[in-house]
Amino acid sequence: MAIPCPPFIGSEKLSIESGAMSPSSPSPLILTQDELKKIAAYKAVEFVQSGMVLGLGTGSTAKHAVDRIADLLHQGKLKNIVGIPTSTKTHKQAVSLGIPLSDLNSHPVVDLAIDGADEVDSNLNLVKGRGGSLLREKMIESACKKFIVIVDESKLVAHVGASGAMPVEVVPFCWKFTQDRLQNLFDYAGCLAKLRTDNGGEKIFVTDNGNYIVDLFFKKDIGDLKVASDAILRLAGVVEHGMFLDMATTVIVADRTSDPVRLYWRLVVTLASLDPQLLRRLLKMFMGLYSVIGLKKSLQYGHPEGPTDLKERKQSSQKHPQDSEHDMVE
Amino acid sequence: MAIPCPPFIGSEKLSIESGAMSPSSPSPLILTQDELKKIAAYKAVEFVQSGMVLGLGTGSTAKHAVDRIADLLHQGKLKNIVGIPTSTKTHKQAVSLGIPLSDLNSHPVVDLAIDGADEVDSNLNLVKGRGGSLLREKMIESACKKFIVIVDESKLVAHVGASGAMPVEVVPFCWKFTQDRLQNLFDYAGCLAKLRTDNGGEKIFVTDNGNYIVDLFFKKDIGDLKVASDAILRLAGVVEHGMFLDMATTVIVADRTSDPVRLYWRLVVTLASLDPQLLRRLLKMFMGLYSVIGLKKSLQYGHPEGPTDLKERKQSSQKHPQDSEHDMVE
Repeated sequence: MAIPCPPFIGSEKLSIESGAMSPSSPSPLILTQDELKKIAAYKAVEFVQSGMVLGLGTGSTAKHAVDRIADLLHQGKLKNIVGIPTSTKTHKQAVSLGIPLSDLNSHPVVDLAIDGADEVDSNLNLVKGRGGSLLREKMIESACKKFIVIVDESKLVAHVGASGAMPVEVVPFCWKFTQDRLQNLFDYAGCLAKLRTDNGGEKIFVTDNGNYIVDLFFKKDIGDLKVASDAILRLAGVVEHGMFLDMATTVIVADRTSDPVRLYWRLVVTLASLDPQLLRRLLKMFMGLYSVIGLKKSLQYGHPEGPTDLKERKQSSQKHPQDSEHDMVE
Repeated sequence: MAIPCPPFIGSEKLSIESGAMSPSSPSPLILTQDELKKIAAYKAVEFVQSGMVLGLGTGSTAKHAVDRIADLLHQGKLKNIVGIPTSTKTHKQAVSLGIPLSDLNSHPVVDLAIDGADEVDSNLNLVKGRGGSLLREKMIESACKKFIVIVDESKLVAHVGASGAMPVEVVPFCWKFTQDRLQNLFDYAGCLAKLRTDNGGEKIFVTDNGNYIVDLFFKKDIGDLKVASDAILRLAGVVEHGMFLDMATTVIVADRTSDPVRLYWRLVVTLASLDPQLLRRLLKMFMGLYSVIGLKKSLQYGHPEGPTDLKERKQSSQKHPQDSEHDMVE
């Protein structure tokens, strides 16, 4: 099981090395979503130490972390790293970069895993698996002492499923039956269950484990996540679901901003906003600073953009398969 | 979900038709274990009606039921049956016998399933899957209105795992890691987890779904089965386990005896012993009879053989992989 550690990045200085952002980025910076992902990934890799067994995540954000780990290995700044890839895709990437690899059978305890997420709620619960690797990710990340989640601001949600699909891996045998049972289970939340296809086509998406994915789209909050989790897992035919509950020990959120210093504080504040106690502690420490960097409104409401913006963003980003056929974000 | 019905065979006359037992059986009968299985299977098929959607079980006992259903179809005594096989093996058997087949996708509600079990406890909880088909069996049998379990007397146990393995289907990816976690989960019950191989050899047993089976052997009662079930299912890497809780609506137990009339009453009494309320009701109805057929001791202790015999049988039949390499019963 994951060992809890404070769910925010501490007060050390922001060190974004060259390469973290596009070299041609003007000042003030206009950061793309990919640059934000890279910032979060590079920040996470600062926690990696020589000799560690590392869970290597899957997806567009985690890819930056794997690249960065390889860079540091080649520079000699990291040594004796053993990587445990969470997908065949990451396995290929790590092999091509020369990162030494192993698996959970040989290394059942993982020091640190770094991975992206499709959603992060205010309790650091995650939705993962829109990229299809939820099972291996969950196996490896549940074996970690520390699990750092790296996301850009678009992944912060008020509740699970608010921005799109919550994936469930199911056995191919009678998948339609399982899909219907899943939809019925969350009927109260306006659930629509949909078998995932490759790029929205007719070919069924198959996971690394030879299973299918049923994506659940909720119109409302599904309520108690642990109850929901057990209810899903009790359905024969379900292999695993994409809710990662009580697993993340740290979340790094890269926020769109024009100023690296402000970026750093927004980062800290965003993280702190996930934990009211930490928020109060930080407020006390940095009371003189936060008005300078103009985040009063954000702090009041626990999110850098404030409640109005957040609501608008949620409304505009919340997708339902009836509205759109293509919803795979990461 | 299964719709409860009284967990015993009612007071109708025993009708074991010719063919249920070996035609050459002398009187008094000396029944083999396979004949007992056949008796239970034929009794269960009496509950089948024309027009039903039927779950067709897997294993040496269920095989007799499938054979019998095919016989009745060919004799014209049953019509418009649709079978849903619980394994590729049963699928082949049913096809060879000409039973019309479908699946859960087309028939998500099953009227009746008939299947064997490896263990039945006093709450009608089952252990299944020593034959390897637990996942498909559970999917189909959880979709049934009625689920009749057919066993011979050797399958009655005091608690889950008392007679051998409790199988867990796991994904092949890092199966050893999952095996170790399963063993640790039941450390308090002296659990030994063991990957299943084909016929005790070196080749790993692969399920119909392309997964592996980890057999759990307990030295002690594992306690609350629902808690144990959820704990197993929460492990990423586990697909399904072989405990079928609150699913059986009827259990038919064929008991070794020399007298068909006594066989019937032992059958009723054994079934009734699984439910104290029913036992009391039957006692009241048949008070004059049971002393005649010499089952007083059995009734007092809720099992035809009485507590001493039961204990002895359990001790002699309880197996642990350290004692024996070959434990696949059904």
